[in-house]
Amino acid sequence: MPLSEFDLIRKYFQKPFKDYPDVRYGIGDDAAVVTVPSGMELALSMDTLVAGIHFTNRTAPEDIGYKALAVNLSDMAAMGAEPRWVTMSLTLPENDPAAWLERFMTGFSLLAKKYSVSLIGGDLSRGPLSITLQIHGWLPAGTAITRGGSKPDDLIYVSGTLGDAGLALKLLSDQLSIPDKYRAFVLDRLNRPGPRIDLGLALRHIATSAIDISDGLIADLGHILDASHAGALLNPDKLPLSDAMRHADVADEEKWEIAVTSGDDYELCFTIPPDKKTGFEKKQISDCPITCIGKIIREQEMRWVRTDGSGYTPRGSGYKHF
Amino acid sequence: MPLSEFDLIRKYFQKPFKDYPDVRYGIGDDAAVVTVPSGMELALSMDTLVAGIHFTNRTAPEDIGYKALAVNLSDMAAMGAEPRWVTMSLTLPENDPAAWLERFMTGFSLLAKKYSVSLIGGDLSRGPLSITLQIHGWLPAGTAITRGGSKPDDLIYVSGTLGDAGLALKLLSDQLSIPDKYRAFVLDRLNRPGPRIDLGLALRHIATSAIDISDGLIADLGHILDASHAGALLNPDKLPLSDAMRHADVADEEKWEIAVTSGDDYELCFTIPPDKKTGFEKKQISDCPITCIGKIIREQEMRWVRTDGSGYTPRGSGYKHF
Repeated sequence: MPLSEFDLIRKYFQKPFKDYPDVRYGIGDDAAVVTVPSGMELALSMDTLVAGIHFTNRTAPEDIGYKALAVNLSDMAAMGAEPRWVTMSLTLPENDPAAWLERFMTGFSLLAKKYSVSLIGGDLSRGPLSITLQIHGWLPAGTAITRGGSKPDDLIYVSGTLGDAGLALKLLSDQLSIPDKYRAFVLDRLNRPGPRIDLGLALRHIATSAIDISDGLIADLGHILDASHAGALLNPDKLPLSDAMRHADVADEEKWEIAVTSGDDYELCFTIPPDKKTGFEKKQISDCPITCIGKIIREQEMRWVRTDGSGYTPRGSGYKHF
Repeated sequence: MPLSEFDLIRKYFQKPFKDYPDVRYGIGDDAAVVTVPSGMELALSMDTLVAGIHFTNRTAPEDIGYKALAVNLSDMAAMGAEPRWVTMSLTLPENDPAAWLERFMTGFSLLAKKYSVSLIGGDLSRGPLSITLQIHGWLPAGTAITRGGSKPDDLIYVSGTLGDAGLALKLLSDQLSIPDKYRAFVLDRLNRPGPRIDLGLALRHIATSAIDISDGLIADLGHILDASHAGALLNPDKLPLSDAMRHADVADEEKWEIAVTSGDDYELCFTIPPDKKTGFEKKQISDCPITCIGKIIREQEMRWVRTDGSGYTPRGSGYKHF
């Protein structure tokens, strides 16, 4: 006999999570009740993954569970918030979803444990497969890093390497090839993006703006420029590319194109004032390379100039915000 | 040309809502940032409505918008929390959803304004129609009304009248008839349930348990009994029935059956200690009749006894929790 809704909730959602002292009531009442420490503000963000849009029927349930939480954690990183609790609404087509849930929650729990995030509530419905998560985190009052604070001459940084998730999608649809030894790396970058929580916390009081790159650098840096009423001068030679990208069988310009227009990387793009550059670059942020790719300019445009002074014009049109 | 995602968000989600001082950042960044006053705890609850499951393609978008928020507000009422902010993830099939959104947000905003609730974030995706809302409210630390606090001899109350939404569903599927003059009333009860926020606030420090009736009295009172490790002695003659229900062309037992097993009423069921009865019943709670329908007993069962001492056994099987 299939497990009842209440049995499923108990087994997969309630039992695996620790009782943290900031959770007065978790799953099992009309609402969860939590405590926000005095002096802290609450940051919250909601994201939905829909089958056929955000993942395919070939995506492993473990990866869907991992990524659903990762993209939400990434929003906390972009605000400089410490993630605490998550709520989840699952809409499932199966009559007996226990096997799917078992695998989905394996991926989800792996990341939840890593960041001590607890699942405190949600909803379970019958219907087309879709997952909505809301992440909640806290930060000292007034320290949230928004998109709107960058000023001319601020340096523009990105974390990690860009375009690997887009590279994976092109690989999966046979649009290009890479040496076999890089295949696992790029698929992992697509299916299990690592939220840059530690970097986000380190950026408090330093970054003037930040965003996570979910729609591609051009689109997301575009949001920063839009909100800051500014533009950017960028050098494509500085774009951080992975070894996998460097070894893809396409021209350099095509690699840049993937790096600046494809989404799903969940790296951070952020700006810091020039006088904070040295101090910031000395900080050790575990396992997180950062690269300066340009600077903020007053003119409200995005200008690309190579190290040798020649120009570059991305073909991609993700950037439409002014 | 259809409006872009960002235009839709600005027009329908961002502009219509006031900037309350407890919202530092609303829609438009990686996360919303809000303040919870010192001494308050945060209550939060998430609910999803799926097309074809929770509403039909004949349900007016205005009613879907109204009800999506109403069912979430109802969870705040059941905890004794004051609703403050809502986040919403919409998955929409249409290429150009502006007309649908205009109508949906009309219903949503009507209720949001009534309770000074502000829309602070969310997500917009393409896919099968579904709406996930999370409501956030606050309450003085330690005053949340849970399901687990009822004790033997506590009196069991319900607000409003029971079964009207179920009556509407039976009416729509031609399973019974009622005089025409009650038709608008019962459809309104199904499509625009009124969350019992004022009652929930009045129950702080008085009620030992509370729940909102979304799955029917038997199922939801069952959750209270389950969490409180107790049972209930109930009198079907005391069930509050609307004039519409009283005039339906079915036998009394069938009316009780609808009243105790059909969901979607969003009335509150709650318990109060006998010594608080007089004081509580003297309180004026605007536009919200309450009725005592029985009491909590030690034996973990649900027993129905009529005023004349005869028994009644509901046929419905919503109640499965022990």
